[in-house]
Amino acid sequence: MKKKGILMVVSGFSGAGKGTVMKELLKRYPDSYALSVSATTRSPRTGETDGVEYFFVTTEEFEQMIAKDRLVEYAKYVDNYYGTPRTYVEEQLEAGKDVILEIEIQGALKIKEKFPEALLLFISPPSAEELRKRLVNRGTETLDVIEARLKRAREESFGIENYDYFVVNDKLSDCVEEVHAIVSCEHRRVSRNIYLVNNIREELSGFSKGE
Amino acid sequence: MKKKGILMVVSGFSGAGKGTVMKELLKRYPDSYALSVSATTRSPRTGETDGVEYFFVTTEEFEQMIAKDRLVEYAKYVDNYYGTPRTYVEEQLEAGKDVILEIEIQGALKIKEKFPEALLLFISPPSAEELRKRLVNRGTETLDVIEARLKRAREESFGIENYDYFVVNDKLSDCVEEVHAIVSCEHRRVSRNIYLVNNIREELSGFSKGE
Repeated sequence: MKKKGILMVVSGFSGAGKGTVMKELLKRYPDSYALSVSATTRSPRTGETDGVEYFFVTTEEFEQMIAKDRLVEYAKYVDNYYGTPRTYVEEQLEAGKDVILEIEIQGALKIKEKFPEALLLFISPPSAEELRKRLVNRGTETLDVIEARLKRAREESFGIENYDYFVVNDKLSDCVEEVHAIVSCEHRRVSRNIYLVNNIREELSGFSKGE
Repeated sequence: MKKKGILMVVSGFSGAGKGTVMKELLKRYPDSYALSVSATTRSPRTGETDGVEYFFVTTEEFEQMIAKDRLVEYAKYVDNYYGTPRTYVEEQLEAGKDVILEIEIQGALKIKEKFPEALLLFISPPSAEELRKRLVNRGTETLDVIEARLKRAREESFGIENYDYFVVNDKLSDCVEEVHAIVSCEHRRVSRNIYLVNNIREELSGFSKGE
C-alpha cells in the first residue's frame, strides 16, 4: 500500500517568515511536498499571478465552489472570501505528497475538525521584540500598520494551543530542516502506519498456525 | 525556565533489538538521555550486575517500595515483581534529560495513564519473518522458545495501537537516529512549550499597551 501524504497546516504571525520557510522547504524537498494555492475573491496586487499566489475568482465563482463542496475550508475576511480548493489537496495526498496549507487560525481549526489527522504547525519568531524588528526593518510598512500587525499577533497568540508544534524561526535554514524533521517523524506515528501494524500482525498469526 | 525532559516508554517484540538501540542511543547522546533501571525480585542471571540490568531486591523490599509509593509503575510476571523506581526518573526529568523506560505493554499503559505526556515508542523488526530469522540466528534459543516468543509477539502486536510511534529497526544506526529525531521533534510540541508561548504572548501584550 502506498503511503498517504500528511495534510499540513502552517500558520504564524505576519512577519514570522512562514512564507519564506515554506518556499525553501519546497525548493529543498520538491518530491516530498506540495503547496496548496488558495482561491480568493480579492483583487490581485501588483506582481501577483493567478495560480501562483492565489487563484483569483469572482464572488459568483467562489459561491459556486462553496455550493458544490469544492473547498476543504473557506473564510471571509472583511469583504473577501479565501478558501482551499479540494481537488488539488486530495490528489496530492493520494500521490503521497505532504500538502502545505498556509492559512490562518480560523481555517486551521476548520481543517483540524474535518481532518483530525492534519498536522498543525505554528511558526514564530524567537521573540516579540524580534517580530517588531523584522516588521520595522522591512521598511515598507508605516508605524500604524506595524502596530496593527503586532496587535493582530497578540490576538493570534491566543490560538497557538490549538496547534501541534511550535517552531521557532530564528535561522531560516535551521527552521526549514526542523519543519522537515517534524513532518518526517510524524510519518512514524502508529496512527499513520496502521497497515504496517496489521501486516506484521497477520504475518505473526501465520506463524502461530504452525506452518 | 529550564526545559523538562520527556518520559519515554520503549517497548518492542523480544528480538526487535530495542535493548541494542537504546544502548547505542545513550552512547551517541549521553547528555540527552538517561536510562531508568527497573527493580525486580527475580534472581540475577549469570553476568547480570545489581544496578546495571536491574536493581535486585527481595519481595519484602519490593512490597515496601509499593507501600511507600516509590514506584511509578510495577507489574507481576509469573512469580516476580518488576517496577520502575520513582526518584531516579523524577530527578532526571527535572534535570532536563529524556528518560528511557524499557518496559512491556502492561507497564507502558500504566505510565500513559499516570503521565499523559509520556512518549510511547514501539520498536519492530521490518517483518515477522525477519524477527524469526533474528531469533533463530542467535543460536541460543531452542525451537520451542522461539515458537513461544513468536506467539508472545503476536499477542503483543495487539497493543501497538496504544503507542505513539512505530519505529522499524532495520539498520541499527538508522533506527537510533530515527528515535533521536522523534524525541527531538517531540520537544517542539506546543504542549511541551507552554512557557515559551506564554512568554511571547506577554511580550506582545506589553507592546499593545503603547510603551
